[in-house]
Amino acid sequence: MKVYLAGPDVFLSDAMAVGRRKRDICAAHGLVGLFPLDNEIDPAGPEASLAIFQANTRMMREADAIVANLTPFRGPSADAGTVYELGFMAGQEKFCTGYSNVPGVYLDRVAGTRSLDGSALFYDSDKLIIEDFGLADNLMIVHALDLFGHALITPQQTPVDIWHDLTAFEACVRLVAERAKRA
Amino acid sequence: MKVYLAGPDVFLSDAMAVGRRKRDICAAHGLVGLFPLDNEIDPAGPEASLAIFQANTRMMREADAIVANLTPFRGPSADAGTVYELGFMAGQEKFCTGYSNVPGVYLDRVAGTRSLDGSALFYDSDKLIIEDFGLADNLMIVHALDLFGHALITPQQTPVDIWHDLTAFEACVRLVAERAKRA
Repeated sequence: MKVYLAGPDVFLSDAMAVGRRKRDICAAHGLVGLFPLDNEIDPAGPEASLAIFQANTRMMREADAIVANLTPFRGPSADAGTVYELGFMAGQEKFCTGYSNVPGVYLDRVAGTRSLDGSALFYDSDKLIIEDFGLADNLMIVHALDLFGHALITPQQTPVDIWHDLTAFEACVRLVAERAKRA
Repeated sequence: MKVYLAGPDVFLSDAMAVGRRKRDICAAHGLVGLFPLDNEIDPAGPEASLAIFQANTRMMREADAIVANLTPFRGPSADAGTVYELGFMAGQEKFCTGYSNVPGVYLDRVAGTRSLDGSALFYDSDKLIIEDFGLADNLMIVHALDLFGHALITPQQTPVDIWHDLTAFEACVRLVAERAKRA
């Protein structure tokens, strides 16, 4: 079974090494990991971003499952590119798994939470309502995993290096491998 | 034609009124707008978030197109729930349109951009690389619109009220209406 390895890992300065480690973990569980940077596109080339999009989309169509790194990225939610890819794979009815290396709930991560009007609602600094369901991130992300694959995996405690600890990643890979055995 | 109206508009304190305005604009162009809050789920009820997810997913399956409000939300990128929904609709091979009421490129919106190593790369404050393709947001979002519908619509200048100005929204609705006529 082929599994698409989505995540902001591609933005790490050692992204290639992390991709190799992720693929090795997949191989140890009998799976083929597809890591976006394996597409070998020159990021400085003309139309590079479009070529990357097309190559990633091809990989997603080829894969039977996704393991999405949904660790919060540049804000309270997961990386936008990864969330798009989770949606795409859900839309394609593939097996969806994901993890976040930062435990805790979304509401607590949004800066400036406060009740403005005496109601039970919380608002951010732009006076937009903050969803308060006790979930780790936006409900569309969390429940997509619940219903189209397996519940979000998070560690009990935040690992020392949230961008290099692959314990939760491997737990997702194990779920995909079990699914592959049953299929 | 039915069009799913995705966006963080649901978090506005006058979300119902904005939803009505969006549906009215759709109707004026001969379309049926499906706004998530029309699902009439008690947000304080048991399993509310799961019920909202399922109702939104039903609406997306029912719709032929999406107009996604991709205005930056709690960070440099669009709202995570909206991005998931764009991905889902792309995965379902629906007609994808979207707008952002904040013009400008992603790189300029990420705090702390700086070149660390004398290379052409930019890094954020966590030393993660910032993508630098001159695009408005993550390349997966921008090119999904380019290839599965129509390029992102943005105003020339930021409107006075980015959460209530529906000029760019209406431009997307017009695109969907044209598509409906051709179909």
